[in-house]
Amino acid sequence: MNKPTLHTCLSPALLHLYDVKNTIVVVIDVLRATSTIATALYNGAREIIPIDSVQRCIQLGTQIECVTAGERDGQIAPGLQHGNSSFEYPESFIKGKILVLTTTNGTKLLHMALAKGATEIVTGAFLNLSAVCDHLIGMKKNVILGCAAWKDKPNLEDTLFAGAVVSRVKEHFSVNCDASHLAENLYTIAKDDMFEFMKANNASHYHRLMNFGLERDIRHCLTSDLANILPEYMDGKLVVLKK
Amino acid sequence: MNKPTLHTCLSPALLHLYDVKNTIVVVIDVLRATSTIATALYNGAREIIPIDSVQRCIQLGTQIECVTAGERDGQIAPGLQHGNSSFEYPESFIKGKILVLTTTNGTKLLHMALAKGATEIVTGAFLNLSAVCDHLIGMKKNVILGCAAWKDKPNLEDTLFAGAVVSRVKEHFSVNCDASHLAENLYTIAKDDMFEFMKANNASHYHRLMNFGLERDIRHCLTSDLANILPEYMDGKLVVLKK
Repeated sequence: MNKPTLHTCLSPALLHLYDVKNTIVVVIDVLRATSTIATALYNGAREIIPIDSVQRCIQLGTQIECVTAGERDGQIAPGLQHGNSSFEYPESFIKGKILVLTTTNGTKLLHMALAKGATEIVTGAFLNLSAVCDHLIGMKKNVILGCAAWKDKPNLEDTLFAGAVVSRVKEHFSVNCDASHLAENLYTIAKDDMFEFMKANNASHYHRLMNFGLERDIRHCLTSDLANILPEYMDGKLVVLKK
Repeated sequence: MNKPTLHTCLSPALLHLYDVKNTIVVVIDVLRATSTIATALYNGAREIIPIDSVQRCIQLGTQIECVTAGERDGQIAPGLQHGNSSFEYPESFIKGKILVLTTTNGTKLLHMALAKGATEIVTGAFLNLSAVCDHLIGMKKNVILGCAAWKDKPNLEDTLFAGAVVSRVKEHFSVNCDASHLAENLYTIAKDDMFEFMKANNASHYHRLMNFGLERDIRHCLTSDLANILPEYMDGKLVVLKK
């Protein structure tokens, strides 16, 4: 039997090059949207509604009982209650609640994948690396690892996560995709100390977040399996996929 | 004094994200357009006219005295005289002649850079790596390393060349660009044996050319400084930049 295919798309601006239909798309936005999503769901959030604009997030906050959250340029956006740090969503706070989260890069990619007919959309970050990999191996379907990037420019952290997935699942897929090999090689160099790698390479987003004093956040987001559930997008919401 | 900036653009489909104006754009199409360009000019071709369609290439061949060349899918395109291998252009054949070369990915990127107002467009490949680096260091202007990629998908060989340039010139530039760091890291892994790296990673274009028996061509294109001149695009033609 032919193995399913796996591709890595380094930027939403390249998604049109890939055959998204009948594919599982993994939306990757390591710093920090998909890390926050994994954490909040792991800690018992009932569901997460990803929204692309602050205004619509505020509006939804007036219509349903929920926690509204999101940042612009590293600060809680005016009119919202919470930011984009995993540490803001412990079980004691988020359990049973609906989180309405506005992000730019990640949400945009998610909606693009939906519009292009993806069979299934899940989100991935190091915090739920194993859950993502186990799911992809189990499903035996074509996969696109979609990096949310930064304003469409490829970034190191999303590419690193794609590489981590490739290195774990590649035996189960046909990987005829230079971007996947590129990502895997990058991960191979970086994996022993990804924080140091980001620092040594002066990763642009690392730099941005460090300027806001968010070293602890970055280190957390680069740690594997601390929130090891699989967020799946269904009917406008991200929920934990039940096995 | 502030250093000029350096960015790496991994695909023509991402060029719109970069500020091309007042910038030197290095067009990179290692397998094999910019390798062939370096070789033909090094061996004395008077000029090279890059053309995007086979039809226009044939047409120009009837209008001026020239050698027409180009491939589609690894074979000499019907109606043209020569292919896309450096070995077809020894001094004994090409000296003093005009080469009209049709390529897809490289020519497209070149015309895009021109339309977006690049100050200067040069072409780069391992065969003229040092000439490219020396020029960039000497000019002290902002630089974009533009990978021609493969049908807009990032590829290993162009990314590797961008990484080779970054590793050599980075001290002279402000490099706030994850794609550049990514490329440099990739090059660091691969540099000791790039052919083996391409093979081990089953690079898609490596695979394509190997199927045509072109191992010798690939090895040649991955060798540094065998045709160490600088092709510059001026008035519709590529000529050797005189110092």
